[in-house]
Amino acid sequence: MNWNDPSFPPSPPAVSDLRAGSLAQPSDALAWVDARCVALDTELVSPVEAFGRILGAPIYAIGNHPAHATAALDGFALHAAATLGASDYNPLPLNLQSNFAGAMGNDVAMPIALGQTLPAGADAVLPTEEAGLRGTILDVFRPIAVGANLVRAGDEAIDGAVVLDTGNRLRAQDIALLALIGTEHVAVIQRPRVRLLMTRTPAGDIDTILLSALLRRDGAQFEAAARAHDGDSLCDALALATVDSDLILVCGASGLGDNDFAVDSVARAGVLDMHGVAINPGATTALGRADNVPVIVLPGSPLACLYAYEWIAGRAVRRLAGSRNDWPYPKRRARLTRKIASTLGVQEFCRVRLHGNDAEPLTVTDGRLLASAVRADGFVIVPVHSEGYAENTEVTVLLHGSE
Amino acid sequence: MNWNDPSFPPSPPAVSDLRAGSLAQPSDALAWVDARCVALDTELVSPVEAFGRILGAPIYAIGNHPAHATAALDGFALHAAATLGASDYNPLPLNLQSNFAGAMGNDVAMPIALGQTLPAGADAVLPTEEAGLRGTILDVFRPIAVGANLVRAGDEAIDGAVVLDTGNRLRAQDIALLALIGTEHVAVIQRPRVRLLMTRTPAGDIDTILLSALLRRDGAQFEAAARAHDGDSLCDALALATVDSDLILVCGASGLGDNDFAVDSVARAGVLDMHGVAINPGATTALGRADNVPVIVLPGSPLACLYAYEWIAGRAVRRLAGSRNDWPYPKRRARLTRKIASTLGVQEFCRVRLHGNDAEPLTVTDGRLLASAVRADGFVIVPVHSEGYAENTEVTVLLHGSE
Repeated sequence: MNWNDPSFPPSPPAVSDLRAGSLAQPSDALAWVDARCVALDTELVSPVEAFGRILGAPIYAIGNHPAHATAALDGFALHAAATLGASDYNPLPLNLQSNFAGAMGNDVAMPIALGQTLPAGADAVLPTEEAGLRGTILDVFRPIAVGANLVRAGDEAIDGAVVLDTGNRLRAQDIALLALIGTEHVAVIQRPRVRLLMTRTPAGDIDTILLSALLRRDGAQFEAAARAHDGDSLCDALALATVDSDLILVCGASGLGDNDFAVDSVARAGVLDMHGVAINPGATTALGRADNVPVIVLPGSPLACLYAYEWIAGRAVRRLAGSRNDWPYPKRRARLTRKIASTLGVQEFCRVRLHGNDAEPLTVTDGRLLASAVRADGFVIVPVHSEGYAENTEVTVLLHGSE
Repeated sequence: MNWNDPSFPPSPPAVSDLRAGSLAQPSDALAWVDARCVALDTELVSPVEAFGRILGAPIYAIGNHPAHATAALDGFALHAAATLGASDYNPLPLNLQSNFAGAMGNDVAMPIALGQTLPAGADAVLPTEEAGLRGTILDVFRPIAVGANLVRAGDEAIDGAVVLDTGNRLRAQDIALLALIGTEHVAVIQRPRVRLLMTRTPAGDIDTILLSALLRRDGAQFEAAARAHDGDSLCDALALATVDSDLILVCGASGLGDNDFAVDSVARAGVLDMHGVAINPGATTALGRADNVPVIVLPGSPLACLYAYEWIAGRAVRRLAGSRNDWPYPKRRARLTRKIASTLGVQEFCRVRLHGNDAEPLTVTDGRLLASAVRADGFVIVPVHSEGYAENTEVTVLLHGSE
């Protein structure tokens, strides 16, 4: 997507203002992300480099793969018809031959290895163990069907067929098939270029480590600029970052205190769309733009930073990278061992620890500690309009890591 | 683990012989892996480098973190007792003060920012928005409790406590907490050094791409040696590889044909424990050792290579890397849209495509095509003693990629 494109969505009126005590709905924040962050353009890479990347254009087969029928195991290429009636008591003899001028005769068999092209005329492969060798004579002990133990021309991919479609994250077998059909260049979605602008938040080094790991996990290319010490230097950094970034993350100074210059800087450098989102942790998150590059301000408290990233900024990164919208990490159903109480009007991320099929909510006193996310296996989302869940409720747990 | 350790398990009698038509049980193959592949020694890395790695020793907190109580938000440090009875109608005035020689007085409040250490004597933080400023007077509008809005000393980690235990794969929040508590070096399990020995299998380039991606996914350091063209060169390559490998994978030439030299080479270079495992695809898999380094021979047919890796070799890699045994990628419960028929005595990997909660088995003619694993979202395991599953059975699907 070209950010200078006139189709870039116009700014909606600011829908939240933390100072006035009005928080944006989480759904509004996600809609803001979805409107402004769409899959980037593609770039061409080799199949090997394409591993783990997201396909930006369909891959079509050019020609049939395999081009001709090939043996699916080691054995003997032959005419299936010549094996009719064969048994241990009635072995049928065929002449072994390794080369043919024209099509293979009916009374002939040719040794063949897995992956080798069948000779013209052959229509089946007899496994090595179902025949016996006597000099140049092959005794066939079993009848086999036409097409047995071979891969037909086009079985892996037929000329012109879509082998893999846009939006697929390429797995090991996918890039192997691309190599098999001779694909040299694969159009994958570019990695989002994310600029990380740290403010002078007390936990700055910790937030940098946290966000760098999350961005790495989500496939972004990122660069952390020097810390902005005040509003002016953040304004300058924002202006600079717009030149070569697909997304700008500002971390810290997101609240309402005297030193919280981040949000004012976004407003001065561009447009501030929302300040304050009804999520907890993460309520001081702000959304805006500088020269039409989306800017997301994340809280400086590491725990709030983590959830604001996971729920809002991470979605922006993943959408730019061409991922699907839904939470891309493992989920589990589990039963609450204790009730979860949640504030009406705020979407809460309740950290839980899994014990088999049980989810144990971590206690409220853990509410603002980074350690609570470390102790947790994942989190349960309590929506804005819910006051929580009773003990024994079955809930969906979004896992922080792989299972 | 040191492979020269005399505690290395002794060789069991060979339990399978493909040539004699006897296949090892899949459980025997996994037991072989589990006996020979255990977590490697640890190495020390920085918290940033530790992201995604597996912890090889517990992390203990040294000192309390935070060392002293700190503000959990921007506001005013004060004595909670001084706010008792405060309301909009009865604002309680306190004297604003920024420095203290000794402990803070009862009638005093100090401006404080998130993360700052509380002055001695203060026991709560009043949020900015719950007070009013009149010059050097702070009007308090709400009573707050002792301990409100602060993080107590040791709340993130108490001196001597285990912060993270052995076996955890370190997530973004985990390495952030390590940084928070001042950890400089983290003992993580070494990446397994895997040597990939390709034979002259027709699909060699494709298998190399496939296995390289799978090894990368599973966190191995790997090196692909030049292709071995015959049994002698494979013997030489095996001997060479034992010097600096934790695991050797041989790919191709695993069957019974004249050119299938892989298994004989393993027997010549060391010990062949099993040839033939009752899995499909993947039955020609072989297990052995050279100079006590485990050697796994994978079939050269890319589809069989994929499943033999996923089920056997991948488990070896993951165990060496310190992972837990269970399939580490996402799983889903789904309902079969058609029955799956499976051969008794063989554990089959049935490839399925997911449509919502439905799992559609891919047709049998796809049985040996790499494309079948590309079309599939995952696979269902039909155990050795099962003939398959009826339509509408709820089954567990092991996903090939993230959801």
